[in-house]
Amino acid sequence: MSLLNMPLFIQDTAAIEGDMGMLWMLISGILVFLMQAGFTLVESGFTRSKNVVNIAMKNVLDIAVGSLVYWFVGYSLMYGDTNGWVGWSGLMFNQGPADLFFQTVFCATAATIVSGAIAGRTKYNTYIIFSIVMTAFIYPIAGGWQWNGDGWLAQMGFIDFAGSSIVHAVGGWAALVGAALVGPRLGKYTADGKAVDIPGHNKLLAALGVFILWFGWFGFNGGSQLAWGGDDAVGASMVVLVTNLAASAGAVGALIISWIKYKKPNLDMTLNGALAGLVSITAGCGNMSEFGAIAAGFIGGIIVVFSMEFVEQKLKIDDAVGAFSVHGLAGAWGTLVIGLWGIDGATGIGLFNGGGSEQFVAQLTGTAAYAIWAVVVSFIFFFILKKTMGLRVTEKEEIEGLDLSEHGALAYPGKRQREIED
Amino acid sequence: MSLLNMPLFIQDTAAIEGDMGMLWMLISGILVFLMQAGFTLVESGFTRSKNVVNIAMKNVLDIAVGSLVYWFVGYSLMYGDTNGWVGWSGLMFNQGPADLFFQTVFCATAATIVSGAIAGRTKYNTYIIFSIVMTAFIYPIAGGWQWNGDGWLAQMGFIDFAGSSIVHAVGGWAALVGAALVGPRLGKYTADGKAVDIPGHNKLLAALGVFILWFGWFGFNGGSQLAWGGDDAVGASMVVLVTNLAASAGAVGALIISWIKYKKPNLDMTLNGALAGLVSITAGCGNMSEFGAIAAGFIGGIIVVFSMEFVEQKLKIDDAVGAFSVHGLAGAWGTLVIGLWGIDGATGIGLFNGGGSEQFVAQLTGTAAYAIWAVVVSFIFFFILKKTMGLRVTEKEEIEGLDLSEHGALAYPGKRQREIED
Amino acid sequence: MSLLNMPLFIQDTAAIEGDMGMLWMLISGILVFLMQAGFTLVESGFTRSKNVVNIAMKNVLDIAVGSLVYWFVGYSLMYGDTNGWVGWSGLMFNQGPADLFFQTVFCATAATIVSGAIAGRTKYNTYIIFSIVMTAFIYPIAGGWQWNGDGWLAQMGFIDFAGSSIVHAVGGWAALVGAALVGPRLGKYTADGKAVDIPGHNKLLAALGVFILWFGWFGFNGGSQLAWGGDDAVGASMVVLVTNLAASAGAVGALIISWIKYKKPNLDMTLNGALAGLVSITAGCGNMSEFGAIAAGFIGGIIVVFSMEFVEQKLKIDDAVGAFSVHGLAGAWGTLVIGLWGIDGATGIGLFNGGGSEQFVAQLTGTAAYAIWAVVVSFIFFFILKKTMGLRVTEKEEIEGLDLSEHGALAYPGKRQREIED
Repeated sequence: MSLLNMPLFIQDTAAIEGDMGMLWMLISGILVFLMQAGFTLVESGFTRSKNVVNIAMKNVLDIAVGSLVYWFVGYSLMYGDTNGWVGWSGLMFNQGPADLFFQTVFCATAATIVSGAIAGRTKYNTYIIFSIVMTAFIYPIAGGWQWNGDGWLAQMGFIDFAGSSIVHAVGGWAALVGAALVGPRLGKYTADGKAVDIPGHNKLLAALGVFILWFGWFGFNGGSQLAWGGDDAVGASMVVLVTNLAASAGAVGALIISWIKYKKPNLDMTLNGALAGLVSITAGCGNMSEFGAIAAGFIGGIIVVFSMEFVEQKLKIDDAVGAFSVHGLAGAWGTLVIGLWGIDGATGIGLFNGGGSEQFVAQLTGTAAYAIWAVVVSFIFFFILKKTMGLRVTEKEEIEGLDLSEHGALAYPGKRQREIED
Repeated sequence: MSLLNMPLFIQDTAAIEGDMGMLWMLISGILVFLMQAGFTLVESGFTRSKNVVNIAMKNVLDIAVGSLVYWFVGYSLMYGDTNGWVGWSGLMFNQGPADLFFQTVFCATAATIVSGAIAGRTKYNTYIIFSIVMTAFIYPIAGGWQWNGDGWLAQMGFIDFAGSSIVHAVGGWAALVGAALVGPRLGKYTADGKAVDIPGHNKLLAALGVFILWFGWFGFNGGSQLAWGGDDAVGASMVVLVTNLAASAGAVGALIISWIKYKKPNLDMTLNGALAGLVSITAGCGNMSEFGAIAAGFIGGIIVVFSMEFVEQKLKIDDAVGAFSVHGLAGAWGTLVIGLWGIDGATGIGLFNGGGSEQFVAQLTGTAAYAIWAVVVSFIFFFILKKTMGLRVTEKEEIEGLDLSEHGALAYPGKRQREIED
Repeated sequence: MSLLNMPLFIQDTAAIEGDMGMLWMLISGILVFLMQAGFTLVESGFTRSKNVVNIAMKNVLDIAVGSLVYWFVGYSLMYGDTNGWVGWSGLMFNQGPADLFFQTVFCATAATIVSGAIAGRTKYNTYIIFSIVMTAFIYPIAGGWQWNGDGWLAQMGFIDFAGSSIVHAVGGWAALVGAALVGPRLGKYTADGKAVDIPGHNKLLAALGVFILWFGWFGFNGGSQLAWGGDDAVGASMVVLVTNLAASAGAVGALIISWIKYKKPNLDMTLNGALAGLVSITAGCGNMSEFGAIAAGFIGGIIVVFSMEFVEQKLKIDDAVGAFSVHGLAGAWGTLVIGLWGIDGATGIGLFNGGGSEQFVAQLTGTAAYAIWAVVVSFIFFFILKKTMGLRVTEKEEIEGLDLSEHGALAYPGKRQREIED
């Protein structure tokens, strides 16, 4: 045996670690895919039965159209050669099937967040155009700023490990703008501006949806390690662990606050708290101690309770499922918290120890940049659509329900279903 | 260190690659298992509430009985020493637990496809016997022709990577024969032969079922690589990627066609289109470019819309969930398309470039062979049962619903449920 | 190249096997997490619609609070330095994130089992305290006897591979005690003591829950191998295989018995039979042949039918979902059966061949120890709570349903839902 054999051996170890990384990324992507089912259930469960078919149609569309357009142009805009702001390496560019698949299912998530906020009154053909624009342009360009190594935020030291801002806050801000422009559902506000509760029609399926999202989130965050082997194996495991702790703390935080505020422990809030906890750890899951993750999630769970009330009662924007509070505001919080008590994942040393307030400035810059991008671009988009093809169905169609008016079918076509669920 | 150590090292690398392959196969099998839940939801959601308990009982039975009989005799018939047509290496033969488990969950899928077509009027004890025959004989013998390396179709160069024909078309053709022999549900056709729509009772759960099937399909197709490591890691990732693209294209294809035909974008068709896209890529997922996969899935999604109408209105066969169109016809299409624009997975070169029309002839032969096998054997089987123990419940039992008559329990026993769902 | 390089190579192989083990454990833990959704669906589906929000709140709480307290104290009590009975290595002790995550999701399962038995009449704040005590103390101390290598049962040769006794029987016995102390639901027994059937409100979701549990159980049992690579890869695959066979046999066993006893094949029993089959193989899944697993599961499925009747009609304890029969009794059976026909996983030789009746004595000791521990500790706990804050809601609240009285919200707030589901 000569030294010539040695490189072969080292190459083999690296190749095996690469194969393990691909395996983890692929499995993670498969888990993330199922989140689409979770979003469908949460959104349906938290809204009325007359709009369920429409919600399913939107969510199927998000993954179907999103998969096609992200493969065709989105990935290239995100991961192609970039000037720091927009990438491009030609149509259908990608860096291997496992990576393309993983990034595709992320992309579909960003679109779906908006769907919930504008549920119950938005035209389906308008939504299709939005979904295409979101998955082809809005999300990929935003994502490239950070996840393309040459993006301007990446260069600046901004951290968003799995997308608190890139996926969730971008989706959440667009959801807020969309909900504002499409206007509240009929009957949501009384003549004197008081908010009326429109309870979801199936809370068991909403709970199932949250469990499925929580489950898929282990792939969403854990898979963002993009590797497995040695430090990466421990790192990805730590990501999954703190993701679970933050979700748990978010649920507990929202449970406690809802109990205090409303005198009874509230399921909707507890479920939203778990989701907010997940969103709050998504940016920092590679840079958090267990304690840090629990604190981030707990505060995220509290934020969501107050934010939902604020959006509904002060801003008077009818975000039908609280998408902005859960994804937008908790996403911004999850991005900022890294600047407060984030640690270096490898050494465990606080990021502030080395960088003073530099990290916080980077986090603030990125958080603001994503908020501005999402608000401005989605405003322009929704505004143009409102003035052209229109955002909203007619009053008659809305009362009838989008299932019948837009899709010609009821979700639960028992003879008396319409009366029952009214 | 001497050269004697070298084989140990090479052996270690091979062993590790083998272990990774086993890991991927096992995880894939676990994903495929969950498809049984997906089938239960799709079948229940697309039919009436008075037959839900019966549907759950059939699907639980398929995996329970299928697991036992496939382990006992099926695997040996499929993978034992073969004369090209039937294998046998003794009772309880297998080639390792990960492989046996993976093949078992495939087998249960084939049986379940039939269940949907004959929903709402078939005797439970008859179904049990069918399920045993399907998982012990019909499917294993068919599977051995191709997946046993010495099978006659394998020898001929026929390609069916994950079972468009072997699993789905075999199931689909048997479903068509079963539905024809058991006859339409009461009220499905008017006196003058016009088809009456019997809408499913819960489309949200049908949509959840489709998401779960799509999720499990990544294991179904990806796991059929049967290995992980080096080229296999990239290959299996590519399988998952094109599977997702084909499903997406199938959903979009059916969405567009249904919108044109029925004036409104239709959920049932979009969901069936996604499934048809999945079936259409199952045979060729190791031999398709992204473009090829999208085209295959898109056409599959279109086929299913026309086929469901044709079966219902021209053939006047009451296939309660469109099982033949989704699994049978799209399965045949998915097998044939390899002969049209399949590529060599490793080189990316079109199969036609090397083999002229030889590949198409092989695909046509296999597609026809599986169709003939499934039609003939299931006809003989269902015909004998019809003449002996009977296929169908009484008219009174059918009107009452199979849940009460066959199982003595309602799925949703609220006081007025019966009236509501009628 | 010198001999000095050799250790590096061997180290690499071991490191890679370690990484693969971590990957399998993490993925298994993620699968186990989803079981929480399965429990929510089974428990909800098998009980009435007026208590669904409460059930979801209990199950979310179990994982949320359980994750926090198990991380904080539970793991240390279980895996810390031990005197054989109680471990302790300080607060927040753990042996790596993948292991902590895997053990955490196990812990949440144990708490959840109790939730089902006492459904429909138990105060939510009391349940919270129970859940904390269960996940912080009752389960971790019990678990350490066996899964901490220095535990007294481990030292004795007791086998409980994945927790038939440690997780399921401990939960099941606590469930029985809880159900006895909280008393039967109003209307469960007539004045002369006859049991009244209170049918579950959604059997389709119960069936979905069982499929999800079965799916997660592959991680529960398979992941308990705690390693992957070489013999462990084959071993874990064998675990998954026999787990599926036992579940299948359990479903078939309960199906047959229910058909004989009640004249019709019963869905509730078949589903419970599948779960009992899973519980019955959980202890012995590393020590069973395929035949042994099928026999264990089949008998488990039969046991559950008779046991549910016995508990309901003879003991007159209202275990709302049969938690004791499914988890407690089948768990005890699954632990004992290793002493009857367990084999050495590596050699396939019967345990009796080497150890005479020693293994059976060890199994009996452990089974009894876990039963006594769970009964005594949970009795003390529930008794104290009954005398202080009370276990049970008022009669008015129970009739109204816990969803409204405890949480102020209906699960399905359609206008007439209350009347319909009554």
